[in-house]
Amino acid sequence: MDFVRQYPDAYLRAASHAPIVTPDTLHSMNHDARSFWGWGNRAAALDPDQVRPLLAATLGDQVKWNNTTIPVPQLEQVSLPEPRLSAPASLAALARSDPFARASHTYGKSYRDIVRGLAGDFSLAPDLVMQPTTPSQVSEVLQWCSNTGIACVPYGGGSSVVGGTEARFPRDYSGAVSLDLTAMNRLLDVDLVSRTARLEAGILGPELETALRPHGLTLRHYPQSFEFSTLGGWIATRSGGHFASGRTHIEDFVASLDITMPVGTLTTRRLPGSGAGPSPDQFFAGSEGALGVITAAEMRLQARPVYRASTSATFPDLLSAVPAVRALAQSTLFPTNCRLLDAREANLNGVGDGSRAVLLLGFESADYDVTPQLQTAIDLVRDHGSVGIAEPQVARPGDPTKRDAQADQWRESFLAAPYLRDALIRLGLLAETFETAVPWDQFEPFHAAVTQATAAAARAVCGDGIVSCRFTHVYPDGVAPYYTVIASAPPGDRVAGWNAIKLAASDAILQNGGTITHHHAVGRDHRPWYDQQIPELFRRGLAASKQTYDPAGILNPGVLIDPLPQA
Amino acid sequence: MDFVRQYPDAYLRAASHAPIVTPDTLHSMNHDARSFWGWGNRAAALDPDQVRPLLAATLGDQVKWNNTTIPVPQLEQVSLPEPRLSAPASLAALARSDPFARASHTYGKSYRDIVRGLAGDFSLAPDLVMQPTTPSQVSEVLQWCSNTGIACVPYGGGSSVVGGTEARFPRDYSGAVSLDLTAMNRLLDVDLVSRTARLEAGILGPELETALRPHGLTLRHYPQSFEFSTLGGWIATRSGGHFASGRTHIEDFVASLDITMPVGTLTTRRLPGSGAGPSPDQFFAGSEGALGVITAAEMRLQARPVYRASTSATFPDLLSAVPAVRALAQSTLFPTNCRLLDAREANLNGVGDGSRAVLLLGFESADYDVTPQLQTAIDLVRDHGSVGIAEPQVARPGDPTKRDAQADQWRESFLAAPYLRDALIRLGLLAETFETAVPWDQFEPFHAAVTQATAAAARAVCGDGIVSCRFTHVYPDGVAPYYTVIASAPPGDRVAGWNAIKLAASDAILQNGGTITHHHAVGRDHRPWYDQQIPELFRRGLAASKQTYDPAGILNPGVLIDPLPQA
Repeated sequence: MDFVRQYPDAYLRAASHAPIVTPDTLHSMNHDARSFWGWGNRAAALDPDQVRPLLAATLGDQVKWNNTTIPVPQLEQVSLPEPRLSAPASLAALARSDPFARASHTYGKSYRDIVRGLAGDFSLAPDLVMQPTTPSQVSEVLQWCSNTGIACVPYGGGSSVVGGTEARFPRDYSGAVSLDLTAMNRLLDVDLVSRTARLEAGILGPELETALRPHGLTLRHYPQSFEFSTLGGWIATRSGGHFASGRTHIEDFVASLDITMPVGTLTTRRLPGSGAGPSPDQFFAGSEGALGVITAAEMRLQARPVYRASTSATFPDLLSAVPAVRALAQSTLFPTNCRLLDAREANLNGVGDGSRAVLLLGFESADYDVTPQLQTAIDLVRDHGSVGIAEPQVARPGDPTKRDAQADQWRESFLAAPYLRDALIRLGLLAETFETAVPWDQFEPFHAAVTQATAAAARAVCGDGIVSCRFTHVYPDGVAPYYTVIASAPPGDRVAGWNAIKLAASDAILQNGGTITHHHAVGRDHRPWYDQQIPELFRRGLAASKQTYDPAGILNPGVLIDPLPQA
Repeated sequence: MDFVRQYPDAYLRAASHAPIVTPDTLHSMNHDARSFWGWGNRAAALDPDQVRPLLAATLGDQVKWNNTTIPVPQLEQVSLPEPRLSAPASLAALARSDPFARASHTYGKSYRDIVRGLAGDFSLAPDLVMQPTTPSQVSEVLQWCSNTGIACVPYGGGSSVVGGTEARFPRDYSGAVSLDLTAMNRLLDVDLVSRTARLEAGILGPELETALRPHGLTLRHYPQSFEFSTLGGWIATRSGGHFASGRTHIEDFVASLDITMPVGTLTTRRLPGSGAGPSPDQFFAGSEGALGVITAAEMRLQARPVYRASTSATFPDLLSAVPAVRALAQSTLFPTNCRLLDAREANLNGVGDGSRAVLLLGFESADYDVTPQLQTAIDLVRDHGSVGIAEPQVARPGDPTKRDAQADQWRESFLAAPYLRDALIRLGLLAETFETAVPWDQFEPFHAAVTQATAAAARAVCGDGIVSCRFTHVYPDGVAPYYTVIASAPPGDRVAGWNAIKLAASDAILQNGGTITHHHAVGRDHRPWYDQQIPELFRRGLAASKQTYDPAGILNPGVLIDPLPQA
């Protein structure tokens, strides 16, 4: 859910007339400052009472929220299962089993996760959290787990919204270790000539960009989880990036990977391109910790953009904007931003009066003025039915102050959205998102079916509910729609309530030609639909690879593929 | 070897003052019109005597060629081994065992292949050539082969230059079948909205573009083998495409694959993008017929370009041009053409006097004037040391005649280059190419080492030899250099002679950070270096997949990975 992703400005004003979240609170990398049940840093949490005016202004009476607020859980009152493990002496220095470490490594950050955390349900807590600082320590942990039948869950920033880091396994293990990679967070090497950098995989987004900045380079990969997710996590889940078109997925920027497996380690050859057999880097991108632990990566970087040009265009509704967006996607103009909000999503974000869909359009470059590209795009959008185009905003190297202020404001507010989601849940709302991709020719019936199935399920479960849609990424042959669901919290078991809605939405996605995930990954939650989606023979090949790399079946069991039953 | 790739015009004039190869002779798709020992169609072969003036004008006394000409082999005089197989009755209609079919499916099109063909050595001829017309026939062939221990070599256009289609196996089989897919050559479906098409994998390049043209779409994938290679072959070998930058590899354009394996068939879900686990399409791209037979693919297409702008820029030498090329590659301008020829390669192609390196630079678009992009690129190249920039050539929709004439001339001449290579070999020359990719920071020492090792080996083996270089593809983080070797034919065993040169070149490539192949594939010839290049654990995972998909180990044995020894 990123309620305020597109128009943070409006959100921030509505909520408090002043920024709620400051850079200081956002960027604290002190792990013990983190919330153990919700998003990010404790100090940055939003007071639900601050959010009520925003809800009144945007949701009106479409969904109902509570006058009371669910209190945050207190760590002292949380009961954790007795740990079943203690680390061997050689690994003891890496191990933590204190309640904070265990509770904060229990869940990811989906609606289900926040609900369970708020309820103080940490029954799936890992027995131990291990924080290695070297690949050989990772190897030692994996060998200990393999030899003693302990499940090992690789953990980066813990921002999974698909159960990817949860100790929920398809068979019994003697214990569960959360393998936290965030102590491996160094920039190892920068190549200014090739514009690449070798980085440890546990580096968090802000640490990574901070380390690159002195070299004038940037990865420019900004998932909404940017602050609390890691390079290795991005690669393991094929994270979707900043750019709305062209090369944007994290795997497009991988030049080499270091991977540690129970059976050994491998380093792929660092190359700009290669036709030598199936790509190892592509194979391990998306392996979700089930085939190995990514410990380092050589990444392709970019110069920092200094030219920007952007505008917004309105359309009567989402479907009437599709021809314009498709034309842009097929134009080879490669807009950096090409995000279409339906009228409801625009309204939720304070853009216009909710009667129009809005297309946000932007270009950026480190090398040349992108105004001509924007003008070409504007002509194209006007030819394809836009009913209004805003005055273009242009930034050039001569005006750095203006540029940076805009960029900073965008980033801070964008990053604050998950805090807002936690506040909505505390107000008794269900707030969740799901995302997919589908070819253009199938989009219209797909969108109708998914929206209808999801809204009907929300009404059946919650008694109300709204579903909005935006496009996060566009391709020449299709689009990645991103859906937001807001409803009154399901009565009774809120997790089961959301599961019923998710089931309806996911079935509609699969039945109408979509993918169960465009960039959120498979994890445990998407497994039933992933199993339908991938060819059975490919699954068998993957399973054979897993058996080769992880013969004891201890690596993130149940994510992507099930390990073979233990002999 | 594509001697005349860049400046075909000069070649054609030097050789005969008139086009040697006409569109009629080039585009014949009659398989029985093909040469059984060399490139393409028999009727299009070049008379070596026509080529002598070109050699005198370009090579001078740098290498020596013969006054006599090696005669072409006559099929009647070729002795083929007795076929060990006859097809079962249910497959008899697909099988050919006549000498032409067997001889023409024996080799690919490397120097080694042409030399053996000219010598009438067809000892590796397959026992049968099978030409299925449906995926279920492919499946029947694979099951027959699996059940009876016959090796099956998938065969598209037969243009491999790495031994990819040769019946040379790491263990014994009861026979060898060449599985020729070219009868599966239909356009199955076009989606004009998503701009994709579903095509059978055996469709040859010209057939594919001819089928798409009425729909206003193009794949724009033009390897030099375009006329005599297939879509399935391109995907199986991760073929490198037309564009010098940006998305250009064939796998970038795959939306879905149909694959037939001995254990069954699979179809990947057609999607514009997906983050659901490792990509199946990426996994089978580059599988070289060792994991399955690609029978169909859904491909992402483009509108035909109508705006073009191009120029050429000169530099003192190759190394002095590298900063300009690197700046272009890192600029996100994404030039369509960005090919740098060293001074020798420029001279061989009749461009200038051989004292300068030449950068060919071009942009194209279906949607907008690309003159601004070219101008930005020209400014950038001038700032980075170009000593001369030609008058830009611009084509817009208003001047289609001029544009088409240029494009046609380029294409015909580019496609004729392999015919020239055959003529050079008949004149007693060694003519071969190899290609690789390497990060920018390593290019200078890499290039020195590879050039030196190759030239030294050529002198040692042949007594003379020249090595030239051009860049075929550029990336933000590196470059794909393409080397041409021309020397007097090795005395004695010409295949062994070339092998010694190839060994020196390949060792230098691996030792200096390159890949053994950027777009020619691994096949059998690159196996020793591929085995060094890929991580051992990735190789073991691949082997596990192969064992899953092809338990009898009959699919293209020895390409990429060895099948397990037969139990």
